[in-house]
Parts: sequence; C-alpha cells; structure tokens
Amino acid sequence: MDGKGGGLKPMDSEQLREYGHQMVDFIADYYKNIENYPVLSQVEPGYLVKLLPDAAPNQPESLQSVLDDVRSKIIPGVTHWQSPNFHAYYPANSSVAGFLGEMLSAGPGGGVIQGTASEAILVVLLAARDKTLREAGKSALGKLVVYGSDQTHFALQKACQIAGIHPENCRLLKTDSSTNYALPPEIVSEAISHDISIGLIPFFLCGTVGTTSSGTVDPLYSLAKIAKSNGIWFHVDAAYAGSACICPEYRKYLDGVEEADSFNMNAHKWFLTNFDCSTLWVKDRNALIQSLSTNSEFLKHKASQANLVVDYKDWQIPLGRRFRSLKLWMVLRLYGVENLQNYLRNHIKLARYFEECVGQDPRFEIVAPPKFALVCFRLLPPVDDNEARGSNKLNQELLEAVNSTGRVFISHTVLSGMYILRFVVGAPLTKRRHVDAAWKVLQDEACTLLGSPLQENG
Amino acid sequence: MDGKGGGLKPMDSEQLREYGHQMVDFIADYYKNIENYPVLSQVEPGYLVKLLPDAAPNQPESLQSVLDDVRSKIIPGVTHWQSPNFHAYYPANSSVAGFLGEMLSAGPGGGVIQGTASEAILVVLLAARDKTLREAGKSALGKLVVYGSDQTHFALQKACQIAGIHPENCRLLKTDSSTNYALPPEIVSEAISHDISIGLIPFFLCGTVGTTSSGTVDPLYSLAKIAKSNGIWFHVDAAYAGSACICPEYRKYLDGVEEADSFNMNAHKWFLTNFDCSTLWVKDRNALIQSLSTNSEFLKHKASQANLVVDYKDWQIPLGRRFRSLKLWMVLRLYGVENLQNYLRNHIKLARYFEECVGQDPRFEIVAPPKFALVCFRLLPPVDDNEARGSNKLNQELLEAVNSTGRVFISHTVLSGMYILRFVVGAPLTKRRHVDAAWKVLQDEACTLLGSPLQENG
Repeated sequence: MDGKGGGLKPMDSEQLREYGHQMVDFIADYYKNIENYPVLSQVEPGYLVKLLPDAAPNQPESLQSVLDDVRSKIIPGVTHWQSPNFHAYYPANSSVAGFLGEMLSAGPGGGVIQGTASEAILVVLLAARDKTLREAGKSALGKLVVYGSDQTHFALQKACQIAGIHPENCRLLKTDSSTNYALPPEIVSEAISHDISIGLIPFFLCGTVGTTSSGTVDPLYSLAKIAKSNGIWFHVDAAYAGSACICPEYRKYLDGVEEADSFNMNAHKWFLTNFDCSTLWVKDRNALIQSLSTNSEFLKHKASQANLVVDYKDWQIPLGRRFRSLKLWMVLRLYGVENLQNYLRNHIKLARYFEECVGQDPRFEIVAPPKFALVCFRLLPPVDDNEARGSNKLNQELLEAVNSTGRVFISHTVLSGMYILRFVVGAPLTKRRHVDAAWKVLQDEACTLLGSPLQENG
Repeated sequence: MDGKGGGLKPMDSEQLREYGHQMVDFIADYYKNIENYPVLSQVEPGYLVKLLPDAAPNQPESLQSVLDDVRSKIIPGVTHWQSPNFHAYYPANSSVAGFLGEMLSAGPGGGVIQGTASEAILVVLLAARDKTLREAGKSALGKLVVYGSDQTHFALQKACQIAGIHPENCRLLKTDSSTNYALPPEIVSEAISHDISIGLIPFFLCGTVGTTSSGTVDPLYSLAKIAKSNGIWFHVDAAYAGSACICPEYRKYLDGVEEADSFNMNAHKWFLTNFDCSTLWVKDRNALIQSLSTNSEFLKHKASQANLVVDYKDWQIPLGRRFRSLKLWMVLRLYGVENLQNYLRNHIKLARYFEECVGQDPRFEIVAPPKFALVCFRLLPPVDDNEARGSNKLNQELLEAVNSTGRVFISHTVLSGMYILRFVVGAPLTKRRHVDAAWKVLQDEACTLLGSPLQENG
C-alpha cells in the first residue's frame, strides 16, 4: 500500500511522528480556543448530512483537508463538554493526563474496567439473576423482583429489560422531599415483605450515592441490612459522587458500602479520565463469572487453563477490551491524590458559591439541599401568577433562553412534578469568573422573562 | 489545582501541546522498534503485581518516570498485535490514520457504532427476542430457540445467556469437512421443523461470513430463505471477512445478505481502525429501539421529543458513547478505497504464498481450503506414529515451541476433533520476508520435534 504522492502508510513510525505532532497542535489549539465556541452546539439536527459526501473517496485525501472539515463541519455540531461554561448533566472530564493515556493506549491492548455504569449495573444484575435462578429454577424468571427508587439511574430499568425481568417487577419506589429524595428503608422493607407474601422472589436492590437528579445519597447501611436479611444482592451506584469520596470529609457518604455486593464509580465523569472508564467492584466474582463465562477452543492457552490469569472477558459483555486502566493510572500518577482531592474540593466550593448567589436573589429558590458540586434551583413564578404549572413553564423557558445563548449549558430535572434547573461545576477549566458569568446570564434571562429589571437584594 | 513545581494541569493547551509531542515521539519510537520485541509476551502471568506500588502517589510524578515504567514494566507484558510477526487469531489493526482519529476523538463526544461484535449480536438478539415475545407473550421465553453452527462465534452463546434463552434451546448445529464447515441449509430446516413440532418457537438464526476457526462462509442466500419462510430473524456476522468484501472479487461472499435482518463487520479487525469499532446494520430499527429504549427526564430535549435526532442510546447497551465513527472516517479519507482494497489483497496474496510454502513441505498438510488471509494447516505425525491423538499432541507442541521463540505468534483451533494451526496475515507491517521468517521458524521447530533434519522437497 504505497500511496501515490507519498500518501499515509498503514503504520510508519516517522509518519506517525510527523502527523502525531500535527494532531497534537490541532488539539492543543482547540483547547486554547474552547471558550470561543458556543458551549451548546447551535446547529440544527441533521445539518451534517448535507455537508458530507455520499461515498468514501477513492484516492487518499490530505490530513489538512480532513482537519479543515473537522474545523468547519464537525466542530459546529459539537457541544463542548470540556468548556468552562458547561454546567449540565454531570461532567465528563478529559484532562492532559487522561489524554496522554488515551494516546498511549491506542497501541497495545489489555485492561480490566467496564465502559460505562450501564454495563456495570447490567453485569451485576445478570450475576444476581443467575445466582437466584440456580436455586429457584429457570422458570422462576417471571417472579424475580428488582428494587430501586424513582431517583435510580434509568440504567437499572434498561438492565432489567435486557435481562428479561418483567417490567411490572421492577419497583422504582417513590421518594419525596421529606427525605430529600433518598430511598426510605421502611418503604423497601414493606415492598419486599409484600412481594414475598404474594409468591414473588426479591433478588436485587440498588442504592445510589449521588443521584442523577439531585445528588442524593441513599442510606446505604440500612439498605444493606435489609438486603442481607432477605438474601438480596445489594448494588451501590456511585457513578458520579464516588469520586468525591477520595476526600476524607466525604468518605462518610460511603458508610455501609462494606456490606454491598457490588459498587461502581465512573472515573470518566469527575476524575479527569477520558471516556470511557467505569470501575466496578464485586464481592463474589464467581457469581459474575458463572453468568458471563463462555469457553472457546481458539482462546484456550496454558495460563487460562491453569487459572493463572483473571479472564476479564468473563466479567463483561464484550470479548475485546480497550486498555482503559492505563489512562486512569496516568491520571493517578501524574496528578497524585492531593491534587485530585483539591480539584474536587475546588468544584464543590464553586458550587457553594453559586448556591449563595442564588440564595441572595429572592426571585429564585434552592430546591433540595445541594450535594457535592450540584445545585438544584428554580425561578419562582411572579406573585400574581397562579400555580406550579406556570412555574414549570417559566423554568423551561428560562433553561431554553439560557442555553440558546451558547454562553452556558445547564440541564434540568423534575422532582415531585416540579421542573428544576441543575447547575453542576465539574469542567476542568471552570473558575469563579465562569460561575459569575453563568449566574449573570441566568439573571439577565430571568429579567427578560419576568419583564422587569433586576432588583438589588440581600 | 496548581501542581507544585509546575506540575501537570487538568487541562492546559500548552501543556497538552508539550506533553502531546513527547507522547507522539514515545509512541513513534515504540513502532520504530516494534520488531525488536518478542511478539508474544515472555513474562509469567502475575509478574506485574510485584512491580507496582500498593497505592497511588500523594504527589505528582513526572511524565518521564511514568514513561520509564511503561517501557520497563508494562511493555514486557504486552503481546505486540501490530508486530509484523503476529499471525494469531485474526488481526486487530491500528494505523496512523486510526491513531490520529483516536487522538482527535479523545476530545469532543458523539458516535453511532457498537464497540464489538459481541455487543452487536447481543442487541439484535434482544430485538428479535422481544419482537417474538410481543406476539407470543412474555411467558414464552423458555420456548424460544436460536440456531447457529458449531463454528458460530461464541458471542452468540454468550448473548443467549444474557438474554435468558435456555441453554438447551441454543442449537449450535454440527458441521464437518464435507461442507468445509459451512452450515448446511437442510440441517437448519430439519431442526426448525422438529422444534416447531414439539411446541418450541424458533426465532433467531445466525450465519457467518468468515468463521473464526477456518474463515468459512455460510450459504447466506439459502439460510435467509429458510429464516424468511419461518418468520425468523436472520443475522449475518461478518466480523472478520466483511472487510474483504470491499473488493469486487470477494463481494460474492455476501450474496444473500440483502435478505438478512441484520449484519455486522468489525472495522477494528482488518480495516485499519483502532479498537473498538464494530459497524452494525439492522433492517428494522424499530425492533431494536423497542427493545433498548428508555426515557429519562434529565435527557429530554426539544430535538429528541420532536424525533429530529436518532438517539443511539436506544440502539446499544450503554448510555454513553465514544466518538468511534471519527477514526473510521479518517481511515476512509486518509487511505481511500483503492488503497484499502490493495491493503487487503496484499494480505490475501501473502497468505496464498504461505499456503504454497506449506504445500511444498510433505511433512505438513493444509486443512480446509484457505479463505481470505487465513491458512489452516497441521504437521503430520511421522508414518510410524499411530493416529490422531499423536498428531494433536504434536501440533500442540509445535505451536508452543514456535510461540515461545517470541519471533512469531500464531494460534490454533480444533476442527472435527483435529488440532489445527492457524496462520493469519493481517498486521499492517507484515511483508513477504516476515512470512518467510515465520515459515522458517515453523520448519525449524518441526525438525527439532520430529528429530530429523529438513528434507528438501517439491
């Protein structure tokens, strides 16, 4: 494959060096200018189809023309998750160290980590399902019951669909503001007792440290106790907030995790590790392996036959694996624990600062006590307005107005029927001035919506 | 997070530039020297545990010390899949273009492609399962039957385990040398008729283009016809050989695929795209979405509500996705179709050359007609030796002797109880001299095993 005119070879160390340096400069320039882009993409869905050719070119194109297209066609459709003005969902950090690890891992293979929390929850649910069915018999599948709260990530529901758990046996128990949307243990106990009394088989309970909507922490210790006394698999999903627990002052949120059967944390969320990298821990690895192992002659070798190696294909859905541990390892080594703790603390401090700003403006209210680096809040309807419906519409309009400026990107949720805005501090580049600017956009758009100038208060 | 002594920042465009250039040089040097490493790792399983510290460092370490560790501790445990001496399994290509795409995709997010063939087969099996159960009722799960051959990739069996298909309803129909290990349509017909007659529900058939063991192609057109007349989902797994079908002269192996319900090809195998990247096509996307969709308030937005966008989270297991399409796109653009075709043809030509070498040495025999860039062969036992058992042991010993030299890495399979060696040409750097060298190692080790010098023949 000798490209005409000195084209790119499949693998050539000197070309890799030359183009690799060009790509590094391209990417570094992107990050240098990241604040100049609208943080939320401003294009219409489907815009890209019109800009792309119908077929692949017969002859090679130059790297330059590809990069020109990335610049002019791709980047306009990108929402800039690493922008300091990104405050939506939860963060999905990239970092210099994570990037270097990703670059390096593009070579040799290996690894141990799941891709995402969805996959982590699916594999432990399968392990628990099959463990239960080995005792109850395969025909008992229709009787199996799963427990979580209405705040549990929808990955649980999806895992149930995949595993063949009947949708009506997936209990997403109702939470409310009286427990700040944490799962009350007594509700779980009651549900389990009732299900047993009608002949069903409870087998899986999911608790969350840092729910998606409001960062709530479920009472792990009490939930673990209930699970244990009923012989139920207890999983703890700490996808987002697990990172914060590397700080001693937040370690308490994990109290009780020692009683759990499994635990996952997403290093790609708030731990400076490029996507994807979800760490999963299980107490009984045999349960997992019994569910997911397969044998194939073409993969047998001396070490696997002699059980000298841990065969991670039997811990996950796919056979192949990327070398994800490498980038996490580089993050740990190149930053060190103290810097990582301070990185997280700084985000939490900035979130507290945003909370203060909101608290000082009487037109807004904080909803649910802020946890970690997430603040849930809403714009209150004017006094002459008549009800929750008006408030929801108002906040939906505020969200759209704010995000369409391209200067900030926040997201929303619904708690007890109330439409709520979510402000997360989690991007690597976010500083106090970015929080100030975001709050200014929110205030300005609120003024426009309410049709009245900002009143100085507090 | 200002590291002491000018440490690495979470994200800083000038640090990314500086360290990125260092990393590019490190990786380019690795590829420059790749032939100097033993292609198959020579360390003992578990060696790395002893070399690693028990905890992450509190203070940052330098990139230099990390790279030193990669060099001295990690690389010795790596099997070099990109080495020109790698002829095992099937290839898992990296390339300059794919690498550049991987580097670039380490930034912004998006994407459409599955990670691996295992995930592709799982999601279509779930779609077919749920489509059938919507008609037959959820309680019919225990009656569902899946069909493949004993040559189908074990991903099908694993997908069945996950989806709750009873293991005894997973029919891996026996093949033999009379069809060169292709699945005979009449055997499939008979199995389906019998299962229907005893009240079971056939719902899924998997055909393969390029089986893992011997590169066999199942008769797609006949299988599709059977599937259609029985209302069964027909999936075609072309994970490996799908790549070759971009050459007109190999297109014929896909005849009948137009009747399939789904099809997958792994761009990360033999198509110069860094792992992972498995392209999946489905005829009825609604079946997939009905199986895998979930709704969550926090993800709702105008475009998704108005069906303006394709929401790929409903086509796959995880919620998050890596920007895999970017690297495939760069491979297509930076090489162009002609060069890609020639790249594949050159591998196939080198495999034919290896086949000739084997054919000229009477101590060896070719097993099953070679397909694509795979040659299945074995060392014949000496005439005074007495049977298959001896032959299997002999070839197992030859495999171990050859691979333990570190100069070549090949793999094996078992067909009709016969232990067989597999030689694949698929690494980007492999040239004729690497095939010559591999064949020399095989001949030398055969001499040692047989206790007699090489006889010149042919």
